[in-house]
Amino acid sequence: MPRIDLNCDMGESFGAWHMGNDEAVLEHVTSANVACGFHAGDPRTMRATVKAALAKGVAVGAHPGFADLQGFGRRPMTLSGSEAYETVLYQVGALAGFARAAGARLSHVKAHGMLYNMAAKDAGLAEAIVQAVHDFDRELVFFGLAGSELVRAARKAGLRTASEVFADRSYQDDGSLTPRAQPGAMIEDVEASIAQVKRMVLEGLVRSVSGKDVPVEADTLCIHGDQPGAVAFARRIRDELQRAGVEVAPLGAA
Amino acid sequence: MPRIDLNCDMGESFGAWHMGNDEAVLEHVTSANVACGFHAGDPRTMRATVKAALAKGVAVGAHPGFADLQGFGRRPMTLSGSEAYETVLYQVGALAGFARAAGARLSHVKAHGMLYNMAAKDAGLAEAIVQAVHDFDRELVFFGLAGSELVRAARKAGLRTASEVFADRSYQDDGSLTPRAQPGAMIEDVEASIAQVKRMVLEGLVRSVSGKDVPVEADTLCIHGDQPGAVAFARRIRDELQRAGVEVAPLGAA
Amino acid sequence: MPRIDLNCDMGESFGAWHMGNDEAVLEHVTSANVACGFHAGDPRTMRATVKAALAKGVAVGAHPGFADLQGFGRRPMTLSGSEAYETVLYQVGALAGFARAAGARLSHVKAHGMLYNMAAKDAGLAEAIVQAVHDFDRELVFFGLAGSELVRAARKAGLRTASEVFADRSYQDDGSLTPRAQPGAMIEDVEASIAQVKRMVLEGLVRSVSGKDVPVEADTLCIHGDQPGAVAFARRIRDELQRAGVEVAPLGAA
Amino acid sequence: MPRIDLNCDMGESFGAWHMGNDEAVLEHVTSANVACGFHAGDPRTMRATVKAALAKGVAVGAHPGFADLQGFGRRPMTLSGSEAYETVLYQVGALAGFARAAGARLSHVKAHGMLYNMAAKDAGLAEAIVQAVHDFDRELVFFGLAGSELVRAARKAGLRTASEVFADRSYQDDGSLTPRAQPGAMIEDVEASIAQVKRMVLEGLVRSVSGKDVPVEADTLCIHGDQPGAVAFARRIRDELQRAGVEVAPLGAA
Repeated sequence: MPRIDLNCDMGESFGAWHMGNDEAVLEHVTSANVACGFHAGDPRTMRATVKAALAKGVAVGAHPGFADLQGFGRRPMTLSGSEAYETVLYQVGALAGFARAAGARLSHVKAHGMLYNMAAKDAGLAEAIVQAVHDFDRELVFFGLAGSELVRAARKAGLRTASEVFADRSYQDDGSLTPRAQPGAMIEDVEASIAQVKRMVLEGLVRSVSGKDVPVEADTLCIHGDQPGAVAFARRIRDELQRAGVEVAPLGAA
Repeated sequence: MPRIDLNCDMGESFGAWHMGNDEAVLEHVTSANVACGFHAGDPRTMRATVKAALAKGVAVGAHPGFADLQGFGRRPMTLSGSEAYETVLYQVGALAGFARAAGARLSHVKAHGMLYNMAAKDAGLAEAIVQAVHDFDRELVFFGLAGSELVRAARKAGLRTASEVFADRSYQDDGSLTPRAQPGAMIEDVEASIAQVKRMVLEGLVRSVSGKDVPVEADTLCIHGDQPGAVAFARRIRDELQRAGVEVAPLGAA
Repeated sequence: MPRIDLNCDMGESFGAWHMGNDEAVLEHVTSANVACGFHAGDPRTMRATVKAALAKGVAVGAHPGFADLQGFGRRPMTLSGSEAYETVLYQVGALAGFARAAGARLSHVKAHGMLYNMAAKDAGLAEAIVQAVHDFDRELVFFGLAGSELVRAARKAGLRTASEVFADRSYQDDGSLTPRAQPGAMIEDVEASIAQVKRMVLEGLVRSVSGKDVPVEADTLCIHGDQPGAVAFARRIRDELQRAGVEVAPLGAA
Repeated sequence: MPRIDLNCDMGESFGAWHMGNDEAVLEHVTSANVACGFHAGDPRTMRATVKAALAKGVAVGAHPGFADLQGFGRRPMTLSGSEAYETVLYQVGALAGFARAAGARLSHVKAHGMLYNMAAKDAGLAEAIVQAVHDFDRELVFFGLAGSELVRAARKAGLRTASEVFADRSYQDDGSLTPRAQPGAMIEDVEASIAQVKRMVLEGLVRSVSGKDVPVEADTLCIHGDQPGAVAFARRIRDELQRAGVEVAPLGAA
C-alpha cells in the first residue's frame, strides 16, 4: 500500500510574538517539525508545541536552524562543519528534552530554512548535520529534500531517511526544485498541486517544467502552515490521498 | 568510609572569549558543572568541555542559568514557575545531547549563579527547577546548597540529592552562608578553609561565625575554578581529604 | 487652552514576527514611542517605524526596555544604576540614529514595560534612566507616570517632563494606579474612560476608586495600540477632546 | 609633512568576558574603533571604552559588525543592502550616544571583521554601509581597506575617507592583501613590518610579494591590539614613524 507522511513546521512563535496556526494544522498532518529556539521558538513554545502534537498523535521532530532569530534562519551563514554539527546537536538535544519530559520520543529531524537549502547542495554541510543526528540517536528519521545531498549523506551514515516533496513547487529535469526566482517555480493552482502529489506518491514520477517525466521519491510532503489556506489545503490533500488508497502516516519510530 | 565529591563550574567560555582553566582543574575535581549556553557556554564550548571531562573520568552535569549572557546569570530575574521549568529543561536537554553524542550520560544538575541563590530560598522556584530535572531523568543527582529549599524540593520529588558546601565561605548559626556583604563572609586563609572542609566531611559539623557548632551535610564541595590559586587549592584539598581517609568520588549514576 | 499629547508604543514587531497596527494608530496619535531592539523592534522595524511616524507628522520618541526579548521587557530584572544608565543610553542613541538619518530629531523618551513600572517606584532607578536621557540630550521630553519617581527625577535633573495618564486604568486616593490584580483596576466601559480623560485634562482631577477627587497632571495619554478596538478608541478620544476644546498636540521640541 | 593615523579595534570585551589590552594600547594609538554590541562590546564596555579613549585624547570611532556574537563577526553572513544599512546605522547611533553623553563627537567609522572583508570586494555592500554613515553624519571619516570598494564607495558619496594599511600583511601586484591562506601572507618579522609601513607612508609604495613596487595610499595603520607584543609594536612603530618625520595624528573632525 502506498504511503506518505504529511509534515509541517511548527512552534514558530517567539516570546510575545505569535506565528502560525498550529492547533488547526495538527488536525491534518502526521509529523510536526518543531523550531528549537535558534531561528524561532523558545522554551515555552517548544513545550506547548510538543504537548499539542502528542495530544493529536502527531510525530514530534526537531527543526534546527541557523542562530539568526532576526532573519528567521533564512539568511545564508557560513559555518564550518564542526559548527554545523554543534549547532544541530544542541538544538536537537534541547527539543528532545521536551519530548522526553512529556513521556515521548523524538521521531525525526528536519533542518530549517537556509540551513536546509544550503545543505541540500553542500555535501560537507549535509554530512555535518547528519553526523550530529546520528551521534545523538541513530533511530531518528532524517528528513531531506528528495534527491539532495541531505538524503545522500543520511543514507551513507546508515540513518533512515524521508525524501521530502513539495506540492506547490515545480521540478526540473534533474529532479531538483525550480528556483523561486524562475518563472513557473510556484504551482498556484490547487488542483495541479494535488495532481502532482498523487502522481509522486502513486507512480514515483513528477512532470518537470519542460514536460519530462522524472522519477522522484516521496516519503513525506511538506505542508506550509503559515500560508493562508494552509489548513484547508492540508485537509484536502489528506482526503484526496486517502481516497486514492494512500496511507497517510508518520515515518518515525514513535 | 566518609566520602565527598569535588565539583567545579566549567565550560564558561563563550565564542571568542575565554574563561577559566578547565583543563587544569579537571585533574583534581570529580564533577564538572557545564554551562549550557544561556549565561555562558556555546555549542562548541559545551562539546569540548564534555569531551575533556569524560577523558579525565569526571562526571558531567548540566549547569543551567538565567538567559542573561551579558550579566553572566548573576543578575536577579523574576521568572514564573513554568518559565523556570522550561528554561531549565531546555538547557539540561541541550547539554545531555552532547553527553549522549559522546557516548556518556549526564550525571547531575546544578543551577547557576542567581538562579541557584534565589531558588535556595524560594521553595516555588526550587520546585520548578527540580520538576524539570525530574521529568527529564529521575536518575540525575540534584546539587543544591546544603540545607536549602533546593535540597528540600529535590528530596520531596524523590531525586537523589547532593548537599553542597563551600570552603571559602563562613556559615551562620542556622547553617546558612554568611551573606557576602557581611564582614567575615569569606574565609581567605587556606588552612582555615581546609580545616572547615575536613570537619564538615568527617564530623558533619561547621563552626559558625558566632562560634557555635552547627550540623551540615556535605556531599559535594564547590571548587571555584576561575580564581587565582584555584588549581593549587583543588589539588591541596583533594590530597588533604584523601590523607584524612575521605574517598573523593563523584555521586552520579555514571 | 488645555492641551494633551496622545502617545502610543510602536515598532514592536521583530524580524519575521509582526505586532501591532502602527499605520492605523499613527493617524490618531501625536507621539510614537518606538521600541529600540532590546525588548522588541529590530533595526529594520525601527527605520520603518520612524519613517512612518514622520510621514504622519507624529513626534518620534525612544522606548527603551530591559534586554529581554523573550519576555518582551515585562519581567522584572535587577540592574545596578550604572547598568540602567548604560542600557537606556545605548537604546536612545540607536533610535536617535534612525531619526537623524531621516532628517528628524528625537522628541522624547519613555521607558517600557517593567522598566517603567519599577522606576515609577524606585527613585534610584528613575534617576539612572533620567541621567542617561539628560546626558544624551537635555532637550528631550521625559515621559513618566503622573506623580511617580520618574517624573520627580526628571524634574530634579531639569528635563522637560510629560506626566502620563491612562484612560483604561482606575486611580487610588494617592493618585497612583490601582494594581492590575485588584478588582476595579481596569475601566472597561469606553464612555467612562473618555469621561475620566476629559476630567483629567480639563479639571486636573480624577475620581479615585474610593470616590475621592484626586489631583492629577495629564500631559500625555497612553493609547494601547495592540488591543482590539485601539484604533477606534484613539479616533474617538481625539474627537471628544477636540470637541471639548482641548488641543491635541505633541510635547516635544520637534 | 607626511602623516598617519594609528587605529586599533577596542572595547571587545563582553559581559563577564575580558578581551584585549585597551588601556595600554591607548597610550600609543590615535584612533579607537569601538565595538558596538553586535559582534562584541556591550553598553557597559562601550561607555568605559569611550571614556578611556577620550581621557587619552584618542579619536573615538564606531566599529559595527555582523550580529553574530558567537562568531565574533568573523563568519560570512549574507545581508541585503537595506539590512546592511540598518545594522550599521543602529550600531553607529548607539556608539555615538556614548560619545555624546561624554561630551564628545564620533570621529570615524570602520566596519568590523567579515563585514569589512566582504564589503571591501562587494560594491553594493560597501555602498549600503557608506550610505548609513553618510545619512547619520557626513562629517564622519570613513575607514576602509586601501584600494577597496569601501574607499571607492565612500568617495563617491562625498565622505572623507581614510585608506587603511597593514604592517603585518603582504600585498599583491594589484595592491590587494595576500589572502591569509597563501604562503607569505603574514609578515612576521618586526623590522620588515616597520620598513613596509615607513615606505607606504613616506613613498606611497609597497613592495608586492612578487617584488614589484605598487602604489598604495596610507592614511591609517591598523594595530592589532589583541596579539602578544601588540603594545610593544605600537610603541615602536610610533617612535619609528615620528623619528622619520611622520606626524602621527587622528584624521577625524574631533
